[in-house]
Amino acid sequence: MKMKVLVFFVATILAAWECHAYDMFPLRMNTGYGDRSTEMKCASWRLAVEAHNIFGFETIPKECVEPTKEYIHGGQYQSDSKTVNQQAYFYARELEVRENDVFLFSIDGTALSNVPYYSEHGYGVEKFNSTLYDEWVNKGVAPALPETLYNYNKLVSLGFKIVFLSGRLQDKEEVTKANLKAAGYNTWHRLILKDPKFIAPNALEYKSAMREKLMRQGYRIVGIIGDQWSDLLGHHTGDSRTFKLPNPMYYIE
Amino acid sequence: MKMKVLVFFVATILAAWECHAYDMFPLRMNTGYGDRSTEMKCASWRLAVEAHNIFGFETIPKECVEPTKEYIHGGQYQSDSKTVNQQAYFYARELEVRENDVFLFSIDGTALSNVPYYSEHGYGVEKFNSTLYDEWVNKGVAPALPETLYNYNKLVSLGFKIVFLSGRLQDKEEVTKANLKAAGYNTWHRLILKDPKFIAPNALEYKSAMREKLMRQGYRIVGIIGDQWSDLLGHHTGDSRTFKLPNPMYYIE
Repeated sequence: MKMKVLVFFVATILAAWECHAYDMFPLRMNTGYGDRSTEMKCASWRLAVEAHNIFGFETIPKECVEPTKEYIHGGQYQSDSKTVNQQAYFYARELEVRENDVFLFSIDGTALSNVPYYSEHGYGVEKFNSTLYDEWVNKGVAPALPETLYNYNKLVSLGFKIVFLSGRLQDKEEVTKANLKAAGYNTWHRLILKDPKFIAPNALEYKSAMREKLMRQGYRIVGIIGDQWSDLLGHHTGDSRTFKLPNPMYYIE
Repeated sequence: MKMKVLVFFVATILAAWECHAYDMFPLRMNTGYGDRSTEMKCASWRLAVEAHNIFGFETIPKECVEPTKEYIHGGQYQSDSKTVNQQAYFYARELEVRENDVFLFSIDGTALSNVPYYSEHGYGVEKFNSTLYDEWVNKGVAPALPETLYNYNKLVSLGFKIVFLSGRLQDKEEVTKANLKAAGYNTWHRLILKDPKFIAPNALEYKSAMREKLMRQGYRIVGIIGDQWSDLLGHHTGDSRTFKLPNPMYYIE
């Protein structure tokens, strides 16, 4: 433990020297109300990310690699994912299901876990490498996020249509279908992947545009479940409630 | 510790029997992937509140009283409040200050801490009692939330106009001014309290309407800092960034 604390302390200095974009703990800001442990600071960083007070980061703070690892594998991430999925189910079961009611699910980090990838890449401390990530995606070995799969099965049994809306490109359709089925997602109404010809400034605009298209086609979006704020903000969120799953490892604009 | 766990367990059963509105851990939902400790469940509940996945609750879960007390007094609440206020300052210091730029601050739970009140009332497990709360407010003894005061002083020194926008009624103007000054908030451009004749369905609409009025008066809202989502959502948030301070004790519509 003592050793860890020392490592964290050294990491803090390094991180400070590196001067991250979001400038989490600048040396020059002595707030003068006491030191915080690294675990505490990283828990605050994570909370600020989930409440959308911190966004647009390219990497997580160096000193937060260990706390993030502990968060992901120590049970709290699973518990947090469970609570959000429970809320989605508790909301859904009160609804009267109509013909064209759909629940939207994101895929990476929501329906399918990419923890196996990120655990090999510093839990978000490394800059995103699309080549390596695509290689991993193309293996089609992503496990389900168990809490999302559980909720998905509940929503299917309630009679809701499931639409997967992902930023994955259409060239990944086959591997995505196979991976979803292998992970236990046996049925869906639509699987929407990104047309490489579709130009959008960011994921938020792309997903908003796809939702708009769904609504023009007569679907009613009653719920959106995703791990990124760009899955949930933007326009054409319909009459839906949105559910933000935790993701302490990366941020998508 | 063992004893605590037992107490928590008993509390869980009671809470389940009581069947809370938001129905956090219904007995009939066996999610089948392991039990969670009460601390873990309550941390997930708190995160879900901060990420706006859980809202509209009248009381916190009975079993979460102890974990909330530990969160508030154990340093994490202070750390979380610090990180959010830091982010507001890091955002503000990059801005070019113009004549009519204002930062909005909420008062209760944001500028002034009401932890002294809630620590006497079960940290949110008791239903809100406006008579008792008003009695406490009228004493004018609320301390500053230290992290907010620190940020406030930074923003003042940057040259921003400060506007306090509160749901407190106008009959509390004198005690509110005195309390703010006693707590260290020495200057502000406007203090907006609620006109009892102003009819709004909820705090969100009231605060949106007050922001609209400010903007019509030529002010530019560059930042909003509050502990309730109703401080930050709604319309006329201007070009502002909003900053959600933690509040695990109560929810205002």
